[in-house]
Amino acid sequence: MRSREFFCILFIALAFRYCATAQSQTPLNLMPMPASVQQTAGQLPIDQTFSVEITGNHDASLDAAVQRFTKQLSAQTGIPFRPKAGAPAILTIHADHGREAVQKLGEDESYELTITSSGAKINAPTALGVLRGLATFAQLAQITPAGFSVPAVTIKDQPRFPWRGMLIDVSRHFIPLDVLKRNLDGMAAVKMNVLHWHLSDDQGFRAESKKLPKLTGMGSDGLFYTQEEIREVIAYAHDRGIRVVPEFDMPGHSRSWVIGYPDLASGPGPFTLEQGDPILDPTRESTYKFLETFIAEMARLFPDAYFHIGGDEVDGKQWDANPKIQEFIRSHGMKNNQDLQAYFNQKLEKIVAKNHKTMVGWDEILHPDLPKTIVVQSWRGQESLAKAAQQGYRGLLSYGYYLDLMWPASRHYAIDPMSGAAANLTAEQKALIVGGESCQWAEWVTPENVDSHIWPRNAVVAERFWSPQDITDVNSMYTRMRAVSLELESLGLTHNSARERMLQRMAGTGDDTPLRMLADVVEPVKDYNRWDDSKGPIDFHAPLTRLIDAANPESDVAREFSDQVQQFIHSGYQDRVAEAKIRHWLTLWRDNDARLHALLQQSSLLQEDVPLSQNLAMVASAGLQALDYLDKGQPEPELWKAQQIAVIEVAKKPIAGLLLQVTAPLEQLVQAAGTQSR
Amino acid sequence: MRSREFFCILFIALAFRYCATAQSQTPLNLMPMPASVQQTAGQLPIDQTFSVEITGNHDASLDAAVQRFTKQLSAQTGIPFRPKAGAPAILTIHADHGREAVQKLGEDESYELTITSSGAKINAPTALGVLRGLATFAQLAQITPAGFSVPAVTIKDQPRFPWRGMLIDVSRHFIPLDVLKRNLDGMAAVKMNVLHWHLSDDQGFRAESKKLPKLTGMGSDGLFYTQEEIREVIAYAHDRGIRVVPEFDMPGHSRSWVIGYPDLASGPGPFTLEQGDPILDPTRESTYKFLETFIAEMARLFPDAYFHIGGDEVDGKQWDANPKIQEFIRSHGMKNNQDLQAYFNQKLEKIVAKNHKTMVGWDEILHPDLPKTIVVQSWRGQESLAKAAQQGYRGLLSYGYYLDLMWPASRHYAIDPMSGAAANLTAEQKALIVGGESCQWAEWVTPENVDSHIWPRNAVVAERFWSPQDITDVNSMYTRMRAVSLELESLGLTHNSARERMLQRMAGTGDDTPLRMLADVVEPVKDYNRWDDSKGPIDFHAPLTRLIDAANPESDVAREFSDQVQQFIHSGYQDRVAEAKIRHWLTLWRDNDARLHALLQQSSLLQEDVPLSQNLAMVASAGLQALDYLDKGQPEPELWKAQQIAVIEVAKKPIAGLLLQVTAPLEQLVQAAGTQSR
Repeated sequence: MRSREFFCILFIALAFRYCATAQSQTPLNLMPMPASVQQTAGQLPIDQTFSVEITGNHDASLDAAVQRFTKQLSAQTGIPFRPKAGAPAILTIHADHGREAVQKLGEDESYELTITSSGAKINAPTALGVLRGLATFAQLAQITPAGFSVPAVTIKDQPRFPWRGMLIDVSRHFIPLDVLKRNLDGMAAVKMNVLHWHLSDDQGFRAESKKLPKLTGMGSDGLFYTQEEIREVIAYAHDRGIRVVPEFDMPGHSRSWVIGYPDLASGPGPFTLEQGDPILDPTRESTYKFLETFIAEMARLFPDAYFHIGGDEVDGKQWDANPKIQEFIRSHGMKNNQDLQAYFNQKLEKIVAKNHKTMVGWDEILHPDLPKTIVVQSWRGQESLAKAAQQGYRGLLSYGYYLDLMWPASRHYAIDPMSGAAANLTAEQKALIVGGESCQWAEWVTPENVDSHIWPRNAVVAERFWSPQDITDVNSMYTRMRAVSLELESLGLTHNSARERMLQRMAGTGDDTPLRMLADVVEPVKDYNRWDDSKGPIDFHAPLTRLIDAANPESDVAREFSDQVQQFIHSGYQDRVAEAKIRHWLTLWRDNDARLHALLQQSSLLQEDVPLSQNLAMVASAGLQALDYLDKGQPEPELWKAQQIAVIEVAKKPIAGLLLQVTAPLEQLVQAAGTQSR
Repeated sequence: MRSREFFCILFIALAFRYCATAQSQTPLNLMPMPASVQQTAGQLPIDQTFSVEITGNHDASLDAAVQRFTKQLSAQTGIPFRPKAGAPAILTIHADHGREAVQKLGEDESYELTITSSGAKINAPTALGVLRGLATFAQLAQITPAGFSVPAVTIKDQPRFPWRGMLIDVSRHFIPLDVLKRNLDGMAAVKMNVLHWHLSDDQGFRAESKKLPKLTGMGSDGLFYTQEEIREVIAYAHDRGIRVVPEFDMPGHSRSWVIGYPDLASGPGPFTLEQGDPILDPTRESTYKFLETFIAEMARLFPDAYFHIGGDEVDGKQWDANPKIQEFIRSHGMKNNQDLQAYFNQKLEKIVAKNHKTMVGWDEILHPDLPKTIVVQSWRGQESLAKAAQQGYRGLLSYGYYLDLMWPASRHYAIDPMSGAAANLTAEQKALIVGGESCQWAEWVTPENVDSHIWPRNAVVAERFWSPQDITDVNSMYTRMRAVSLELESLGLTHNSARERMLQRMAGTGDDTPLRMLADVVEPVKDYNRWDDSKGPIDFHAPLTRLIDAANPESDVAREFSDQVQQFIHSGYQDRVAEAKIRHWLTLWRDNDARLHALLQQSSLLQEDVPLSQNLAMVASAGLQALDYLDKGQPEPELWKAQQIAVIEVAKKPIAGLLLQVTAPLEQLVQAAGTQSR
């Protein structure tokens, strides 16, 4: 009987999903995709009469949310709303309960959104769910031949994971308040609920401590957040349903700590922001005294129940080199530096717990001596998480979601916290994986280009954390990512507009159209290939104004071009529409270098890209010739093919840190031309 | 001997100007062009070591100005400045004196800027001159093959007119504080020094009065500036060397006054913001009591020495219809309503003067009974100004500088305050013409598109007021206007970026590239042709989100296209480069409708533009055929020509308020094809 019940529910669920898909009139540009969407006939117009009424639980924060939403919808549609006095509200909002003063992990975010041609309703158990419902409503608004409207739908939605975060590193490059805020707006739009604020690292300590003023006074270049500003960010995030979890990385990644407080260091100074690899000394009681003072102050400043202590990548060199520390390890019966870090973490955890916080740390903190309450964040992979879960620890996945690695959205999208080793966990163990976080490490970003390193790709990570696991269609994802990208730009993010400004800077007062054409088909090198150790450490104060800094992590044009090439090839070279598009692009690219060459020469920021532009012209020519051969069905000389492949091989090599992203499909075309004529 | 001296000076001046032109290595993208520029060899690099030192008079306002300048230069170049400790400053600033607490009309704005390859100096009699010098320096920064730099120059500069303003109407559509501020930034960049703040009109009273709260309470839709906000704008403007002159328009244009205070009206109410044409009643003593209270309060709020009372377009209907007013006119020996307005103005002027302010008003206030201290602002033309000057009154020209009329920049540029009737004035009389103001009337703007209605065209008006009268080269103006437009956008103005956002809104999630191509060649109808009285009064709360609202007042592409066509024609159809460019454009336009058609159909905001896009395709086809005939030297049928001309005639008619701006040169081509073959 029980299994029959189970299958009934399963079938209903599947049927529901199926119907939702079958009935949909127009694809909905929602990201993250809700748990359940049922589209019905009709539309609700959005015009000047639009109005919102709150019927249930009501407080200032919900009022503010409705005001923000109305303002956003008005900006999006360009319609100044002037509701008719006395008319019933178009959108009615009902929350059974208000929100927690400090947002809790797992606080109910579910909502139901019902839209008919005469009105809309958002019902939610809590005001937090209302925020999520409003974000969905905003994404539904679209222009039609009859004006702006939202389609009739019934949406029942709740998140898959309760912890859906983004880490922003503000240490390596400082990120000003307004940039943080607009990114919080973006996170709220895609229903992320945790800002993991990476506030300290070797290159800068960014949170003011009043008790320990030398942390920022000497451990930063003067750029840091005052406590008042931190409270402002926390309140701003809370208004948008986002928790703020601070991270203070220790005992490694801690050069900025010891500049003002050299007694914390395991080795001899002097230390500066630019040099030295100090880590904290876990053997001295004074270190813990210091941390007690520091953590007590920060625990009061940051209301969230979780406190991130970092714990990653502890380079043991200084511990190895310090006889006192080695003696301590021996005398305490430890085997190695890992044991010493575990000792440090245990003492740290007690301080954190004393301040009523739960400790979070990276993979390396996992150790059986630590209480089961802690949360492990994995940069290493699902295996790490599975191991932790098997030991009863909660986990967060960040492996696969490093936005700074310049991966295409599809690659992040394909990674699931429950896949790999985690797929084999028991249901109970799986429940310990509470979510994940994307990570924006800040080696190569400035306030000017950071948005484009985060968005729109971060939206697909947000979908991975919110939407059902089986939402995996890549084409649908890219269509919806484009829509959400436009929404985010209208919210104030600058991932598109900043690129234009940066390209224009490179072009001086010249016409930047041909430069844009080049920029459209390149991507920065992937993973850590931008680092060049032979050139010494990164200068974190150097300008980031090259083409590599302006280029999008993923080229939409290159992806679309490749899609057309695949379509053309799969049609047996018969698809004339695809071929025409391919020819159109190739002609533009072939001719672009002639238009661009002088501009590249005239700008110190662009000279390094001269060969890149030439390569584009050459591979485009090769592609056009390949098309000619394919069209004529002519045999082409073997020598020709070998030459073209050689040209393409050269063009595949990164130039000025940039990859010409159209080489792979062009190679396919050249190979095809070769094959066909044999 | 005196005349010989005069000629010597003249020759030296001319020689100087000539040499300045002859020596220039690269054209300098300065707007307004300085009074004297001498370019020498070399460049001063702008790199991370850039620093500024203030050596002379020093105060907080100058410090702030230098900080703003440094931040702007850093944003413009993308270089985070890190000057070497102890190294001499790259730019040295010296002001002999500080600034007046309240900026005065005629306060010294001159400066000298000297740049060599090793450093730069700004010397000025006052800190105000330093501001102007910094604006010039910022415009000189450019990218070169060797990095960013400023060219070596010696500039001696001062304004031609002391009053260089812009009127911003905030009544018809409210303009929020941040939008005002960024426009003040823009004004400062082009050395304008007066914000004429048109704070009241029929459609809304926008300045808070604490004594008379119903002015905004009932006379606005709730959108107005608090006194605190007004002080904020004044301080912001002062920091940038800009005076703020408030205008409260009376006795006409005053519907918003009488809604809360109907006793002021000359006719019976009730009045609402949408209806009624009331004007103030000048016959009642209570009106003056009211104005005494009001002006005393406003005179304290606005520190500037000048106070604008409007006075334009007094529609006498209500005075005519009111027997008591007519009786008052008769019993006081007046001839007509004009005399009554003069009576009003005299009493008003006394109130204004009692509050230590000088009265400014539009043409209509000119009347011999008013003291010679007043200033007349002319919307009617130079003749009006000349007449005033002959009577000893000071004047300002606004005729010809109405930005809302959608004229091309060249048309504004061609109008000089000293031309026409003013050219014949004596030197003494000419000195009474103290400058001019551009006017941004707000019937058709929202905060979203107002920047594009002002910029970059306003920069050429600014040049007219600042630069020597003989700076009139239109080609140079357009080249420099393009550069200043980019500078303004990097300062935060949105005249380019907002258009993109608006086009994307119209296009929904579709690709807006073909829409941009159409938008690039259209202009809104000119003058007051957007008004359509048959449709009733303008709804000032309607969305302004159509293509006409997004289109630039002047199409750069159409101008460039026309230039190429002229060049091609003047070359006797031999200039192959010009012809290739023309063909390139025409082919894109001919094919654009096919790409755009579906998008236009799908968007309620674009459907009205369907015929516009079709017309573009048709006239482009005609142009391509004309080129073919010209190339072949073939005789073409008379019928063909007649047909094409007919098509072009149709395409010349505005559609959805938009003019297809490429029809005139295309007609030339078709005519040429006809002529050549005869």
